[in-house]
Amino acid sequence: MRAVRLISASVSRLSTLAESRGTSVRVMANNAITIDNLNPNIIKLEYAVRGPLVTRAGEIEKELAKGAQKPFNKVIKANIGDAHAMGQKPITFIRQVIACVTYPKLMDEVDFPKDVVERARALLSGCGGNSMGSYTVSFGIEMIRRHVAEYIERRDGYPSDWQTICVMIPIPQYPLYSASLAEYGLEQVGYYLDEDRNWALDVAELERSFKEASSNTAVRAIVVINPGNPTGQVLTRDNIESIVKFAHQHKLFIFADEVYQDNVYAEGCKFHSFKKVMTEMGAPYNQTELASFMTVSKGYMGECGLRGGWMELFNMDPQVQANLFKCISASLCPTTLGQTAVDCVARPPQEGEPSYDLWIKEKTNVLDSLAQRADMIVKTFNTMEGFKCNIVQGAMYAFPSIQLPPKAVERAKAEGKAPDVYYAFRLLEETGICIVPGSGFGQRPGTYHFRTTILPQPELLQEMLEIFKEFHAKFTKEHS
Amino acid sequence: MRAVRLISASVSRLSTLAESRGTSVRVMANNAITIDNLNPNIIKLEYAVRGPLVTRAGEIEKELAKGAQKPFNKVIKANIGDAHAMGQKPITFIRQVIACVTYPKLMDEVDFPKDVVERARALLSGCGGNSMGSYTVSFGIEMIRRHVAEYIERRDGYPSDWQTICVMIPIPQYPLYSASLAEYGLEQVGYYLDEDRNWALDVAELERSFKEASSNTAVRAIVVINPGNPTGQVLTRDNIESIVKFAHQHKLFIFADEVYQDNVYAEGCKFHSFKKVMTEMGAPYNQTELASFMTVSKGYMGECGLRGGWMELFNMDPQVQANLFKCISASLCPTTLGQTAVDCVARPPQEGEPSYDLWIKEKTNVLDSLAQRADMIVKTFNTMEGFKCNIVQGAMYAFPSIQLPPKAVERAKAEGKAPDVYYAFRLLEETGICIVPGSGFGQRPGTYHFRTTILPQPELLQEMLEIFKEFHAKFTKEHS
Repeated sequence: MRAVRLISASVSRLSTLAESRGTSVRVMANNAITIDNLNPNIIKLEYAVRGPLVTRAGEIEKELAKGAQKPFNKVIKANIGDAHAMGQKPITFIRQVIACVTYPKLMDEVDFPKDVVERARALLSGCGGNSMGSYTVSFGIEMIRRHVAEYIERRDGYPSDWQTICVMIPIPQYPLYSASLAEYGLEQVGYYLDEDRNWALDVAELERSFKEASSNTAVRAIVVINPGNPTGQVLTRDNIESIVKFAHQHKLFIFADEVYQDNVYAEGCKFHSFKKVMTEMGAPYNQTELASFMTVSKGYMGECGLRGGWMELFNMDPQVQANLFKCISASLCPTTLGQTAVDCVARPPQEGEPSYDLWIKEKTNVLDSLAQRADMIVKTFNTMEGFKCNIVQGAMYAFPSIQLPPKAVERAKAEGKAPDVYYAFRLLEETGICIVPGSGFGQRPGTYHFRTTILPQPELLQEMLEIFKEFHAKFTKEHS
Repeated sequence: MRAVRLISASVSRLSTLAESRGTSVRVMANNAITIDNLNPNIIKLEYAVRGPLVTRAGEIEKELAKGAQKPFNKVIKANIGDAHAMGQKPITFIRQVIACVTYPKLMDEVDFPKDVVERARALLSGCGGNSMGSYTVSFGIEMIRRHVAEYIERRDGYPSDWQTICVMIPIPQYPLYSASLAEYGLEQVGYYLDEDRNWALDVAELERSFKEASSNTAVRAIVVINPGNPTGQVLTRDNIESIVKFAHQHKLFIFADEVYQDNVYAEGCKFHSFKKVMTEMGAPYNQTELASFMTVSKGYMGECGLRGGWMELFNMDPQVQANLFKCISASLCPTTLGQTAVDCVARPPQEGEPSYDLWIKEKTNVLDSLAQRADMIVKTFNTMEGFKCNIVQGAMYAFPSIQLPPKAVERAKAEGKAPDVYYAFRLLEETGICIVPGSGFGQRPGTYHFRTTILPQPELLQEMLEIFKEFHAKFTKEHS
């Protein structure tokens, strides 16, 4: 960074003298921090799910509120996995427990189920001064970490050490990986999922990508999202085994984003955790380094605003783990109320307990309805000209490919937009439907996709799909 | 990083081949990530308030619980500003509002004050699907940001633009600055506060420090903590003016950590915000770049576990601000329940509203009691041999200097500890009192300090001070 760059127009209040000292640049400006001396990693960082399209959607909402005339009367936010915002109701037990720990006097005044009160008192006893207003240890309340370890043991049938569990916020999600890598100046090595095999991970493709990257960088880790975001696939056990073998062979740390582990819909599909598969494969594969992530934002809970989740570390070098925990402790602690939600999920009401029936009923309703919507969305998309949509086996998203007419591609270029971004902006402006263009996630060159959630409640989803179909027909006609 | 370092004993399972490619090191080990290829910035990162002493305090608590015989029966955590853990009771209005937004059905079942219900409903109407389980915009709910801007306007008498407000978690705190700088590989330039003038900021010292650092680095920003942590001073208006002039002259961005703005105790002391002082100084000083921080963890609220706070940006370059907001959006959103607490603090119950009297009573009780404890702690310390403790004008900490006998310094060296760390460990092991050694905060070479909070409730604080006094007499005798 010895070169002094030209000063852009919008920082014209900068005076002219610029000198370099040592390896750092010093710009004599009226402002201490300008775009010219900002960390270039920050400028590179992009986060697709909350980009300009979403900003525009917010503006449109304000225009509508002010009475602007548009061909639609509301914005449908199909861009973000935000279940409650799309009408899903919270799980009662979680909310009752949080209300009780927040304002314990309620437990004397309101007739809450016995298990709610017991849980609330147990959690409070794990907090300094019996208050959710105290800091917790940086990795989360010990009792909650133990419950998480028990949850994992029930799920996998193998031991989990609560001391490798860290209750955390926020859980990284897909485009966040690229954003975080950019912020830290790390390189991203892309591998393509196989769209023709329902987004499976093809080991030959992993090898190609690894080989290509290894010529100029040290590849250290692989991120796998299962069930897939934005692609909605649920990995088979065989597929996971090959990934583990690949990771072991090339000494890669596996980051398993398993936040959709409860969201599995398709007949014959089952969620297999990386930890369980790895353990069952035996030596040497059970030595592979792994961090697995889970959250209360997804699943049947959809509690995005509470910011609770957990991470399990498996086979991490103890010195590295100590350093990681040191970094985590510098963020003080995760929110106690988010941790409370984590506890309810890790240790849900058990059969025979007063809240059990309602818990099961609410959970089943949410998951059944999501399964129906997953089906509905795929069927509709596959009736649309130029659309091809894989089965949504799990997670909360469909990621159809769309063929855009050459004229649409040209117009997009004329407007300086990627073709799928052009399509998404047109859709938003003309129908109020907000989706995420595929280019924000990465796609094979020359193909176009978008991600939509399956979260709008059934009636709204039906309406959305009809409007979408109509728009797409019109768009295709206009550009053919 | 072309050199390959020796492999330490605890990673002896590493095999031997190590090669460097380009600028990155590649260690052929059984683990993908080891201490040898870890980002060296992470290894450097230290966070004093939650270090080995605190780990040891936790172990001692477990030993006591298992019935270990010690000369004390509990650990007193005077190391961290965690009010509720030390017995302070939550403010009722905040907890009632959070309970209502979490489980809205309560508003039909319980006779909450009218302003609690109104506030809860207003906040829910700002959330997607009327649920706290929805994501908010990354900078926080618009209504809450507007309330924060109004709070700042009331405090300072000058306009505040709600769009420059970001509701956030977590609020950085003192040793976190050094930790974060280390993580990002940035250099820290220390300036000393003037202990003989009650920890005032001396401009000559700022100039010295700036000049020294400027020879090999570009200094961009200055952090000021007012009221002071760990030092407890409240800056005079004159002192703030000189800091602003200094920052303006050297084109520095000011980070004003003003999280203790409600914690001012000493006769004649008053909190002046940097923004207000800067604004009243007029041109050119009112152009200085500033970020000011506030939290619900401190003040009279002490809600550390809820993770709510805010930041106001003033005069930031618009392009830099856009980049900062982009980074913030990659963390999705702050916890909604933490945001709810922020709203209650930014717009507390007003005179004539049903919750007003209780709010004022609780707030006054907490602040009066803290003022008494501040006084009590300073008076006691100043009766102790070799102790010198400035008035705690504000914040939540005392930071006395202690003269350690040469023999203590020698023993510390023999144990490989800094002398103040040795003192703190002895105190912990023999009395159960947990403080933070001054070396974690930085102190003039050859001087020794520690930080203790003023948070133990009056009776416990009295007990703690007596034990402390006894220990110190014994320690001094032993080492003289």
